Amino acid sequence: MKKLFMEGKKSPYFKEIKSAIKNLDKSIEDFLAADNKLLNNAALHLHNSGGKRLRPGFIYLGGQFGDYDRDKLTPMAMAIEITHMATLVHDDVVDNADLRRGKPTVMSIWGNNVSVYAGNYLLAKALRLVSNYESDKINQTLANTALAMCRGEISQLRGKNILETDIDKYLLRIKGKTALLLAASCELGAYISGAEDHVVNALKNFGENLGMAFQITDDILDYSPEAEKFGKILGGDIREGTMTLPLIYTASQERYRQQLQVIWNKDSKSEEDVLEVIKIVKEAKGIDYARSIAGNYIKKAQDFLEETPEGEAQKAFKDIAKNMLDRQI
Amino acid sequence: MKKLFMEGKKSPYFKEIKSAIKNLDKSIEDFLAADNKLLNNAALHLHNSGGKRLRPGFIYLGGQFGDYDRDKLTPMAMAIEITHMATLVHDDVVDNADLRRGKPTVMSIWGNNVSVYAGNYLLAKALRLVSNYESDKINQTLANTALAMCRGEISQLRGKNILETDIDKYLLRIKGKTALLLAASCELGAYISGAEDHVVNALKNFGENLGMAFQITDDILDYSPEAEKFGKILGGDIREGTMTLPLIYTASQERYRQQLQVIWNKDSKSEEDVLEVIKIVKEAKGIDYARSIAGNYIKKAQDFLEETPEGEAQKAFKDIAKNMLDRQI
Repeated sequence: MKKLFMEGKKSPYFKEIKSAIKNLDKSIEDFLAADNKLLNNAALHLHNSGGKRLRPGFIYLGGQFGDYDRDKLTPMAMAIEITHMATLVHDDVVDNADLRRGKPTVMSIWGNNVSVYAGNYLLAKALRLVSNYESDKINQTLANTALAMCRGEISQLRGKNILETDIDKYLLRIKGKTALLLAASCELGAYISGAEDHVVNALKNFGENLGMAFQITDDILDYSPEAEKFGKILGGDIREGTMTLPLIYTASQERYRQQLQVIWNKDSKSEEDVLEVIKIVKEAKGIDYARSIAGNYIKKAQDFLEETPEGEAQKAFKDIAKNMLDRQI
Repeated sequence: MKKLFMEGKKSPYFKEIKSAIKNLDKSIEDFLAADNKLLNNAALHLHNSGGKRLRPGFIYLGGQFGDYDRDKLTPMAMAIEITHMATLVHDDVVDNADLRRGKPTVMSIWGNNVSVYAGNYLLAKALRLVSNYESDKINQTLANTALAMCRGEISQLRGKNILETDIDKYLLRIKGKTALLLAASCELGAYISGAEDHVVNALKNFGENLGMAFQITDDILDYSPEAEKFGKILGGDIREGTMTLPLIYTASQERYRQQLQVIWNKDSKSEEDVLEVIKIVKEAKGIDYARSIAGNYIKKAQDFLEETPEGEAQKAFKDIAKNMLDRQI
């Protein structure tokens, strides 16, 4: 995804987004730098750890369906990215994670206590930015999104270390974890630019479905030898006891469930265990299944795009969807 | 404080508040019960652990300076109390606390991970309630309050286990921890009821100063043999290495600082250490000093009350301030 926004495609739309995102990084740094030093160090550490700036990118792209005004979109792009950062900081506390994007987490450097408050501080900063829009629609959309995200987070918590076979629960989880904030990004970008209601709504649905596909694809990566190229660890989720779609599909088949259960019952999984799980999942066609589900979501996303006016902005989103389907992202 | 709202004073104002708070508890339970079971158990566990309902009480009382309408005030009273609950859940993670209000904390029962997300869920629920007011003034006030609270929290974090002598830092901390949410309660109660701007502002300042006095008084309790009567533990803060005003004042005096430093350097403090610190603080007149500072804040609060229209509502707030000065609260 990074590639798409950052490596200068020829379309003037992508050029503008590349430039907007570059400026956004500076704006976020300045905005966070005005406060407490410890907070800034923690927040900037995370901010500088990279990340795809996917959500701001979608806000700026969504904004091109109306009267595009970068300055009007930027506070929302900052707020959504800062909210995303906050969820990462809190996730690290919950996951007890030492590394994020290949770098030490806030939690591992400063401890749980700084992480909890740093996450809250980021949320409060985002709230402050959003309140400046003085828009009830925006406030309500974000409050609903936040609530649904929290439900997804909690649901993820309960699923850990249990050999789950409920695909609907997984889908609900990734909706909260990823899809809804992408949906809100597309929706609010278009809304702030004054796009028509039915376009705003179509983009919201586009973003949600693309977000589902994005998370499924991201989860599949864990089973791929290419994992490390994307800053992930082969079998990382398996090691942590996190069940994603390829594994859930496999576990839902009786003959594979028993094999998996033996490994899943262990307190800690060895390298061999992890490779064995990957082997079983491949045999059970778990990855193919997950890919087909991701494909369905992308098709749905593409259908919603058809409800938006034709033009360069639509084409840009179409390219993103197509690239995701081709798994070039 | 509980006494004031809950034990039926003769004034019809207190009767109405007592009744409003009783209904509020039911409303909060119903509002939280609609969601995920684990979340509800965690949230309701906290909600049922008691607490003074001080903030909702101030919202209803503030509301009596305008066109009092209980139904219009209740969503805000719920939002502020739920926000307060969220901060307690997160504080327990940071403090690694096993008990809160004499009962096991969410953290000790369900662990850090549930606590972090349960706190966020409560914040999102509060945000949802607030967004229904469709008021920019309310959104901005609460965003600013949230931000200042986060700054106070972080500042508290840095102060731990260091023999602090900076009284201003302490005051900033308790402002974020307690005073600002009480200020927002008075302010928004009056605002929602359509009280005049200068009254809204005077009540905000009243709430802030009363909140400062309230927290100082609460901190003094730690040094009092009466601590347990109020659900606290004698010397609890000392044991945790948390410095409050009586101790900070003592440590700022050269001859006492050295005695304290010896104890403060220890990894864990014995019962004798705690009693020794209390003895030193009493000798250094740390408690008298803290009381005088609390008294100054109450006087300031009383001055701000003079800027509000005379009547039963003003009298009710005056009684609260007076009782706090007399330390009957």
